[in-house]
Amino acid sequence: MLNENDYPISVQFDFNSGTFDPVKIRDDRKLSDLQMMFHDKPRVRSILAEADPLIYEIWYHPFETSKSDMALGVTRLLPGTVGDEYHMTKGHIHERDDQPEIYFCVQGEGYLLLQTIDGEFRAERWTAGTISHIPPMWAHRVVNTCADMLVFVASYHLSAGHDYAPIIDKGFRKLLLEREGQPTFVDSPRWT
Amino acid sequence: MLNENDYPISVQFDFNSGTFDPVKIRDDRKLSDLQMMFHDKPRVRSILAEADPLIYEIWYHPFETSKSDMALGVTRLLPGTVGDEYHMTKGHIHERDDQPEIYFCVQGEGYLLLQTIDGEFRAERWTAGTISHIPPMWAHRVVNTCADMLVFVASYHLSAGHDYAPIIDKGFRKLLLEREGQPTFVDSPRWT
Repeated sequence: MLNENDYPISVQFDFNSGTFDPVKIRDDRKLSDLQMMFHDKPRVRSILAEADPLIYEIWYHPFETSKSDMALGVTRLLPGTVGDEYHMTKGHIHERDDQPEIYFCVQGEGYLLLQTIDGEFRAERWTAGTISHIPPMWAHRVVNTCADMLVFVASYHLSAGHDYAPIIDKGFRKLLLEREGQPTFVDSPRWT
Repeated sequence: MLNENDYPISVQFDFNSGTFDPVKIRDDRKLSDLQMMFHDKPRVRSILAEADPLIYEIWYHPFETSKSDMALGVTRLLPGTVGDEYHMTKGHIHERDDQPEIYFCVQGEGYLLLQTIDGEFRAERWTAGTISHIPPMWAHRVVNTCADMLVFVASYHLSAGHDYAPIIDKGFRKLLLEREGQPTFVDSPRWT
């Protein structure tokens, strides 16, 4: 009755490193993968002329059974800036319009940025322990504004799908820039 | 287009206390709520003649939008035994047969017990950081075998439903008992 995918699975998350074991899939996102996301294009080009720094890693474990398709994702977002803009995830919206997601910030400080297709914008302040519910149809991106790694755990359905196009097209309404050492929201020129 | 339930929500989890804020619903599960779960009925009765100790608390936050119904649950399972049987959650199986759940043990040590309707049994060893995927149609129960609070975070769909009847009826195949100070699996007399 059960097939081999229908059995319980556990992984061990390490609160110090922000990694887990065993990991099924690991993706690195380097600056070259994210260059269209950062506003300071000359700075992006000058960095890429020298190197292609890692911005974040995603560690995945899909849990696909004969009846369900949940997944676990752990993102390790390195501290730093590209010009004056803090390191951030690419950002996506779910392809399906009925798929929420839960994010659990376990380490670091920053913001979860959210935006609807109509341009409604929200920013949720994150510290270690913040748990955010991302309702369906809100694009979401995480920004690391602290000096250390930001680590968050995500729980979602694989069938939700990932659509990057709206974010690549216009980005979020607000940029999160370092101004006098402080994270500061600035209207995006692509929205004004 | 969006209604008031369709906006992002965040709560702040405290890794020290195992609580979060704001909390929508909090349920206490005392020994009187769980007396049919523990095997040593004379011991249950003698404890209840004196007091009705708290075994665990569940802190909930439902995230219901116009298109989705995810929920967050944090369980704080107190250390201790009832006779020789470790404190445990009531245990349930989802009413829907296509609904998995993810559990994240953030503090403490113990076991996640799982069992199908056909009586297939699994025990997943938990320490702080263990993340378990509970496939659909596996009943699940958590047992605290350590001297401190065991805290775990759950993410699931409200529509999954909770069915306690199969567990009340026959329990799990194995009891987790303290033998010479060590957690020891023993065949349940209700299954032999």
